Amino acid sequence: MSNSEKTLPELSESISRVKGLDKEALQKARQRADSLVKPPGSLGRLEEIAVQLAGISGEVFYRPDKRCVVIMASDNGVVEEGVASAPQSVTHTQTLNFIKGITGVAVLAKAYNAGLMVADLGINADVDYRAILNRKIRKSTRNIAKGPAMSREEAERAVMTGIELAARAVHEGNKMLGAGEMGIGNTTTTAAVLCALTGAAPAQAAGKGAGLKEEAYRHKLGVIETALRVNAPDSSDPIDCLAKVGGFDIAALAGLYIGGAISRVPVVIDGFISMVAALAAYKLCPLARDYMIPSHASFEQGFSRAAEALGVEPYLNLNMRLGEGSGCPIMFGVIDAACAVLRDMGTFEEASIGEEYIDAVKEGDNFTVVSQ
Amino acid sequence: MSNSEKTLPELSESISRVKGLDKEALQKARQRADSLVKPPGSLGRLEEIAVQLAGISGEVFYRPDKRCVVIMASDNGVVEEGVASAPQSVTHTQTLNFIKGITGVAVLAKAYNAGLMVADLGINADVDYRAILNRKIRKSTRNIAKGPAMSREEAERAVMTGIELAARAVHEGNKMLGAGEMGIGNTTTTAAVLCALTGAAPAQAAGKGAGLKEEAYRHKLGVIETALRVNAPDSSDPIDCLAKVGGFDIAALAGLYIGGAISRVPVVIDGFISMVAALAAYKLCPLARDYMIPSHASFEQGFSRAAEALGVEPYLNLNMRLGEGSGCPIMFGVIDAACAVLRDMGTFEEASIGEEYIDAVKEGDNFTVVSQ
Repeated sequence: MSNSEKTLPELSESISRVKGLDKEALQKARQRADSLVKPPGSLGRLEEIAVQLAGISGEVFYRPDKRCVVIMASDNGVVEEGVASAPQSVTHTQTLNFIKGITGVAVLAKAYNAGLMVADLGINADVDYRAILNRKIRKSTRNIAKGPAMSREEAERAVMTGIELAARAVHEGNKMLGAGEMGIGNTTTTAAVLCALTGAAPAQAAGKGAGLKEEAYRHKLGVIETALRVNAPDSSDPIDCLAKVGGFDIAALAGLYIGGAISRVPVVIDGFISMVAALAAYKLCPLARDYMIPSHASFEQGFSRAAEALGVEPYLNLNMRLGEGSGCPIMFGVIDAACAVLRDMGTFEEASIGEEYIDAVKEGDNFTVVSQ
Repeated sequence: MSNSEKTLPELSESISRVKGLDKEALQKARQRADSLVKPPGSLGRLEEIAVQLAGISGEVFYRPDKRCVVIMASDNGVVEEGVASAPQSVTHTQTLNFIKGITGVAVLAKAYNAGLMVADLGINADVDYRAILNRKIRKSTRNIAKGPAMSREEAERAVMTGIELAARAVHEGNKMLGAGEMGIGNTTTTAAVLCALTGAAPAQAAGKGAGLKEEAYRHKLGVIETALRVNAPDSSDPIDCLAKVGGFDIAALAGLYIGGAISRVPVVIDGFISMVAALAAYKLCPLARDYMIPSHASFEQGFSRAAEALGVEPYLNLNMRLGEGSGCPIMFGVIDAACAVLRDMGTFEEASIGEEYIDAVKEGDNFTVVSQ
């Protein structure tokens, strides 16, 4: 049975709804960028972002003024192995703190005029607040060191939940999403998924962060190795990888990227967990990558491996390793800048710069001396 | 005669007014950052920025809500050598376009709620607009391939003008400055200054940008080599370097950094020219570096050499090479985020996260697993 035959028809149908970027809008946006009063390409990746947004949305002048970070909160059975120094209850507590507006991502979202959408996929507690979307699949996954984190059907449900949440966010008027998470133990599951998807060794996928002592780090690597051996995930089958060694949070985030692509809105990638979920989404649905925008380079060592496998290069160099989606709002700000440039800069014609200059820069001769 | 004896008393007096960061505010800001509900240090360089701002301003919760990019516009005699494909008149035209609000920096400044302060240091034309500050030293510098760009006295006047403009901007209520420039030919003078200050070879200091053809690039290198040979700038004397192979724009920017430090406001560095001016300011006044904040990594190859010599590492990876100060507003946005984090995040106490967790993270044990 091929992977697509194993996959639920509902998920296969969703994936098939993702289409490529709008070529006409891409071309128009590129023409506009080249007509602006600057040496061609001199705004570098700001121009690339603006062009990508046009291809995503079909609008040359996209204005993602309403946006939100979607946070998937869930617990991980692997904490039994002592891979986390924080008690599992912190997943629940911090999820409430998102709603209180006092966590990193909450403060940053407010600073960048973005909302939060918080969903409980599998917090190991009874959670009943109107501000937290109840999408509970089960209280906590199982311990990946002893068997699969979840069933294949649960993994697909988690992915479908992410797709549904993207549609909901877009329905509420959001024109740009960020991919956030909260879950004690989820750097361990994420590293395991990265190993499963790419064949990386645990030591290449899991980092020490800034403070993990040598002994605790080696223990974490051992747990990941055991999880991979016990479960033998099939690297060619992303759902199998997510189900066996992942978490509800990662699976739901993979769905969020696919859902963003279905709705033709950009989805901003945050740190390690968010990046590995993006890689899983890409493996499920290669076209979804065109709708993803990286943000910062996480301090966590597996991050760059995942980014490379996905083929994206972060824009921000902030040594952040908080997670929660905290890098997304900062990137929303850079995306705003890219949109402003394409929309509001003058063209050479408007700027009364002589034909001679325009000819020179169009030749791509030595225009960099115009200014630097 | 030592360099300080050669320097005008007015400039020496200004330099002596720069003091170190406020140690008490630094310490309070660090304590605050460590008390916030996140693994210590997990917001990485955002925390460093917030702490630096406290040290600069003396206020733990600094709010640089009013800010501007200061643009030094000036012409360069070296364009005679054919190092620029754009005609010299573009310096004048683009300076007017700043005021019209249609250039890259103008659009980005508006997007990030920043103003522009535009000064004419040496545009090779009669410029008479209320919105452009007349600080003209002379119409254009002289051709550095044939002799010094300016006299020592003119270089010091340009530096003093930058100091004066910083004071003026702060007097107008600005709490954060950006260092921008406009001047056809100024990547050539900047590369020459970088060589003069650091001993770098022209090929290490001057780049091809994205479009300079091999022949034009070699010509540019030859002009820089000639300028260094003809003028023999004294690497231990930054004013001598600026006077002999620099420009009024670079010298005035060096003054802007020193002026920002005198007024205890941060000054954000933009691209290649802005970075080399920062290096010159640092060589004139080492304490001024503590008041500088880098922004993006310019595509121009001499940039990273200058950044390394100054000891700063950019925050943004955007492949920009426009100049004008265009990277500064985007960095203003990141700085806003850093301020918001320090000011608005909850502390562990407020966040009701148990003592057990707090103890664990304070030990710096393996807190990175909290989330990533």
